[in-house]
Amino acid sequence: MSDPTAGPVLAVDIGGTKLAAALVEPDGRIAAYDRAPTPNGPGVDGEELWRALEALLDKVAADAGDPPLAGVGAGCGGPMTWPAAEVSPLNIPAWRGFPLRERLRARHPGLPVRIHNDAICVAAGEHWLGAGRGRDNVLGMVVSTGVGGGLILDGRLVNGASGNAGHIGHVVVEPDGPPCACGGRGCLEAIARGPGLVAWARRQGWRPGGSDLTGVELTADARRGDPVAGAAMRRAGRAIGIAIASATHLCDLEVAAIGGGLSQAGPLLFDPLDEAFRTHARMDFARRARIVPAALGQTAGLVGAAALVYAHDRYWSAG
Amino acid sequence: MSDPTAGPVLAVDIGGTKLAAALVEPDGRIAAYDRAPTPNGPGVDGEELWRALEALLDKVAADAGDPPLAGVGAGCGGPMTWPAAEVSPLNIPAWRGFPLRERLRARHPGLPVRIHNDAICVAAGEHWLGAGRGRDNVLGMVVSTGVGGGLILDGRLVNGASGNAGHIGHVVVEPDGPPCACGGRGCLEAIARGPGLVAWARRQGWRPGGSDLTGVELTADARRGDPVAGAAMRRAGRAIGIAIASATHLCDLEVAAIGGGLSQAGPLLFDPLDEAFRTHARMDFARRARIVPAALGQTAGLVGAAALVYAHDRYWSAG
Repeated sequence: MSDPTAGPVLAVDIGGTKLAAALVEPDGRIAAYDRAPTPNGPGVDGEELWRALEALLDKVAADAGDPPLAGVGAGCGGPMTWPAAEVSPLNIPAWRGFPLRERLRARHPGLPVRIHNDAICVAAGEHWLGAGRGRDNVLGMVVSTGVGGGLILDGRLVNGASGNAGHIGHVVVEPDGPPCACGGRGCLEAIARGPGLVAWARRQGWRPGGSDLTGVELTADARRGDPVAGAAMRRAGRAIGIAIASATHLCDLEVAAIGGGLSQAGPLLFDPLDEAFRTHARMDFARRARIVPAALGQTAGLVGAAALVYAHDRYWSAG
Repeated sequence: MSDPTAGPVLAVDIGGTKLAAALVEPDGRIAAYDRAPTPNGPGVDGEELWRALEALLDKVAADAGDPPLAGVGAGCGGPMTWPAAEVSPLNIPAWRGFPLRERLRARHPGLPVRIHNDAICVAAGEHWLGAGRGRDNVLGMVVSTGVGGGLILDGRLVNGASGNAGHIGHVVVEPDGPPCACGGRGCLEAIARGPGLVAWARRQGWRPGGSDLTGVELTADARRGDPVAGAAMRRAGRAIGIAIASATHLCDLEVAAIGGGLSQAGPLLFDPLDEAFRTHARMDFARRARIVPAALGQTAGLVGAAALVYAHDRYWSAG
């Protein structure tokens, strides 16, 4: 069906805020790239969003002279059926059961089309060419508006029963903790997601100058020495460290790579994170695990989507 | 090297209390079985223990007429190096770095000799022929003096970086909880291991008639309606349910199969366990997971040790 040496792969990253697309070469280099705002919000219908995505894909391919493709890889917010990729992204109400794989296959007949959760694509990218390169047991995480992840164990991407393995955001870190959007309680995501941290800081009396109450502002205030903002970072770091300790014990990890907006906070986040991890991960095998910032930045998801095609022996076990 | 159709496999299970050995047929049937107390305690040296094991292996093989073997599989308490299996079982001080695989290979030249953590062998057995049969994503657990486990994901036994994947007993369920023997805090094992539960119940005023203060006695008292013993079962059940919820989110499990002495407590344990799991595992994919008692009983570890040889495509990825 495809000749992976033909390259490039058309890689797609679909989020609630932006759509991104790239042509990715077999060595992971990004040969063309563009993005567009996601048509989202009340009144947007699924076909309008699809047309915006098609326009973006057309433009990226045209900019590079419409080369023959080795395949199409895409990351999209969950949940989705997998591997059929009928997607219902939490943050994109216009798509509910939208047949993304079928649409992309119709658009690119004869080519492999492979779609996975966007955080799983980030993990695949970090394993293929980023902070987890050369290791066989890696957790890739995204800490941002939500907390997502993907698992590579014994050198292969783990899918689980329904393609949902890697949900580190719903590892329980505080059994009687705050309610989570998933319906549970005390999940890592309920504590460490940006909006959750901002809400917590406000309840503790954080009153920033500006009106832009986001994790970015909170991180900036923590860096300036605001005590409540600093406490919020410690709260997130501790929760992440506990979750990674649990994951390391369960999966015997070598590396946990953390990306997403909040990971930009540097030592404000990573120092309390390491402290919590060291408190809870004491067995020899667990102490050897390293927790590092993700290496690929904003393009990790696109690189990982391309890896679903180029390195299918490691990242794609479905048909 | 071996002809798996030749059968049987010599299967070995090495614990701090007893040594067990069996000849296991290709269909998992146990054709011969025997056991012996583990020479253990002060003054026992490693060679004495090895000689006791050899005597047991000789006897089991002789009872069956010394048939040609397809291989040797063994489960042993951890930690160990893996796959080299230099073993240092926590509960067997006479063996520290004991070269178990090398010894068994010297005894059975030309045959495959495969050794894994005893709880991992239980998980492999339950997946091969027990409660997880036919499912691709299974957590096998042993709740007893300790809490151990093994993971099968995407149809294969997960080893992790050092053969230590499956340590469900050290998933954190109560971050500020009791100290654990591993050096950490609030691990599942610190709360739900039999001796931990007994100690907790005694602090709460449990005063059983007999002097045999074990998990067996605690379970019996809970069944008779003792309120403190019942509370201890609920405490264990809740902790196990939280840990399985975290594992299900991280690994997208279909089945968690629970064996070991405490799992004999039935609804006294499984009802609060299910309640905690349902509280924390709310996403669609996680709610589908089933938590069941292990099916193979005391022989699960032997059956799983045989599976390392017979079904190496699923359970043995090392050399």
